[in-house]
Amino acid sequence: MGGEGSVAGGDLNRLRQLNALNVLQSLRGSHPSTLTELARRTGLSRPSTEDVVQDLVAQEWVAEVLPLPGALGRPARRYRFRADAGHVIGIDVGGHKVLAMVADLDGQVIASRRIAVRPETSQANRLATVDEAALGAMRAAGLTADDIWAVSVASTGLVDRSGKVAYSVVPDWTGVDLVGHLGRTFACPVRAENDCRLAALAERWRGVATDSEHIVYVLAGSRTGAGIIINGQLLRGFAGAAGEIGVLPAVGWGRAQEHLRGWSGLPGDVPEEEAATHVFAAARAGDPGAVKAVEEYTKDLALGTSALILAVDPELVVVGGGFSRSADMLLEPLRNELTKLVLHLPQVRTSTLGDEGSALGAVRHSLDLVERLVFAPSAGLGRPVRPDRM
Amino acid sequence: MGGEGSVAGGDLNRLRQLNALNVLQSLRGSHPSTLTELARRTGLSRPSTEDVVQDLVAQEWVAEVLPLPGALGRPARRYRFRADAGHVIGIDVGGHKVLAMVADLDGQVIASRRIAVRPETSQANRLATVDEAALGAMRAAGLTADDIWAVSVASTGLVDRSGKVAYSVVPDWTGVDLVGHLGRTFACPVRAENDCRLAALAERWRGVATDSEHIVYVLAGSRTGAGIIINGQLLRGFAGAAGEIGVLPAVGWGRAQEHLRGWSGLPGDVPEEEAATHVFAAARAGDPGAVKAVEEYTKDLALGTSALILAVDPELVVVGGGFSRSADMLLEPLRNELTKLVLHLPQVRTSTLGDEGSALGAVRHSLDLVERLVFAPSAGLGRPVRPDRM
Repeated sequence: MGGEGSVAGGDLNRLRQLNALNVLQSLRGSHPSTLTELARRTGLSRPSTEDVVQDLVAQEWVAEVLPLPGALGRPARRYRFRADAGHVIGIDVGGHKVLAMVADLDGQVIASRRIAVRPETSQANRLATVDEAALGAMRAAGLTADDIWAVSVASTGLVDRSGKVAYSVVPDWTGVDLVGHLGRTFACPVRAENDCRLAALAERWRGVATDSEHIVYVLAGSRTGAGIIINGQLLRGFAGAAGEIGVLPAVGWGRAQEHLRGWSGLPGDVPEEEAATHVFAAARAGDPGAVKAVEEYTKDLALGTSALILAVDPELVVVGGGFSRSADMLLEPLRNELTKLVLHLPQVRTSTLGDEGSALGAVRHSLDLVERLVFAPSAGLGRPVRPDRM
Repeated sequence: MGGEGSVAGGDLNRLRQLNALNVLQSLRGSHPSTLTELARRTGLSRPSTEDVVQDLVAQEWVAEVLPLPGALGRPARRYRFRADAGHVIGIDVGGHKVLAMVADLDGQVIASRRIAVRPETSQANRLATVDEAALGAMRAAGLTADDIWAVSVASTGLVDRSGKVAYSVVPDWTGVDLVGHLGRTFACPVRAENDCRLAALAERWRGVATDSEHIVYVLAGSRTGAGIIINGQLLRGFAGAAGEIGVLPAVGWGRAQEHLRGWSGLPGDVPEEEAATHVFAAARAGDPGAVKAVEEYTKDLALGTSALILAVDPELVVVGGGFSRSADMLLEPLRNELTKLVLHLPQVRTSTLGDEGSALGAVRHSLDLVERLVFAPSAGLGRPVRPDRM
């Protein structure tokens, strides 16, 4: 670690950079630390550690922590990583809402902005809403576009490697170039990815899947979709189409919501996206028609889910999306259906992230990008720059 | 590479071992080489290279290659890796046959033994046939059990991590402990794995998938099954059940063969496993009933295959198993069906390994084991020993 022997001139800068990374990573992962603690953890000498820390303070990567009031004597100075040295944005664009979050480098969300849209909103208006949400959250956090180091967007549908939406059931959304669009506002790297996939990432980061490596995430809401994690890694697939089992009519996801929307007890004026809430409530109260509708929905949800379980044999299935709020009506029947259909029943849990999973996953995706571009040993603490802006 | 500076006493053996591995790996990957060529490739000095090579010759890892007859002057001595320094076995146990192969460390199959069995063969008799095939191939190769460094068995059904068959459609085969059984004959490491999965491995090694990282292998034969490779790695799944999409009635694999077996033109005395050959031949000759039967079979094959494609989005689908011999009748209709069902149609190719894919995959599995236990830097050229024999 951090070798301090004599080094030829040309390597000196590289060594300083590696030592700086070493100290910074050590601070990122722990409580505020004294120089002595840092020296012990990094293997650097005490004087070297002090040099590196002074550099990092000057570069605003590290801050001194004020001593606790009332402490006796002169306590050793302690330092912390400045999570506010940079910020990232995660955005979720769905049929019914746009949600943007701004987070610091520790992943703490410091501002967010949610704006309702309609499935039939035009592409131009939906993109304008994306800008409004992203910039709104950014300004609420007291930041400008120059302060943002990475932006990720979660979108419904098939997102190709270039960040274009290759296919979406949301009207007028197929073909939109999310990366190109946001790239005009933000100079930092921008990425786009399927919303279910990013929601799966969020579950592994801060949801109910933090202890699992093999996960199938099922979005149960006004749409049904899936994201797969294998060996801790998001499965994109060769054409970015992994998890799209819902396309297959035989597995029932295409018709699943119809059972809920078709319930005869629905008030005439209820908006489509709220219909399910009514059905779940009525089923909870014992209405036989609603109970039957939920049952039929669960059977179809289970069919597609079982196809994914049989394909990749996960350790855990996470049910997220809007309907996960009605987990009390959904989870046991789903487990029972799955038991009949699969060879090995994984654990089945409900997401606790509500409908914020995809946006939070987009934040995590941005942080992963920063991790690779800034904090990896090969990167070296420069702020991330997009190739076209270099 | 291979540093030759002054080294403290305790590290000397380790250094010799790493240098030996370095030279051996260099020889394994190339034509017979002179000491000068080896020194250049490994970064070792010429005298060190000579020392290492002499050690490797004494340990029978390396042999000197005789000069070509008629060469003028005194040509430089050349050395080659001895692929016969060790051997591995791969066995495929199916409903209708047991096939065992013995290969050297280059993966060259030097002997094999095939014995027909019946689906209704008892567990004891099938296991006795496994022994007979394995030992038969071994003796045909002029070897004894002590010469074998690893054994892998491909079995139908679900094989758990301990090497037991947790579930199989072959009668009297569920519960058999393949690793335990073969461990009584062979002192080396023994592994068992699902046959479709190992067939997928064989395609990537020596089949039509050598250039792909994301593969769905579909076994089309008297059974239908699948093996999945993601990022070049076999997908086992959490409980070893990845790829078992055929369990789901909705995707048609369970009933697929019935279309062929039900063809009215079949001779009464044709054995079940040959029925398909008759139907494919009749369809090729234009019999409308047979054409219809093949069509229905292909539709069901496509349904399950499309579920796997939609789940993991591979680059390539390989169709193997007995029916791959009738690829001329199968491949185009399969592609056409898949086009209707999936978002992104991967390449679709027919296996050229016939019904030897699983056995060959078992050989590759054994070689991978030897690679980890013998040739990895952490291993160091000891022959593989099973923990219970240490």
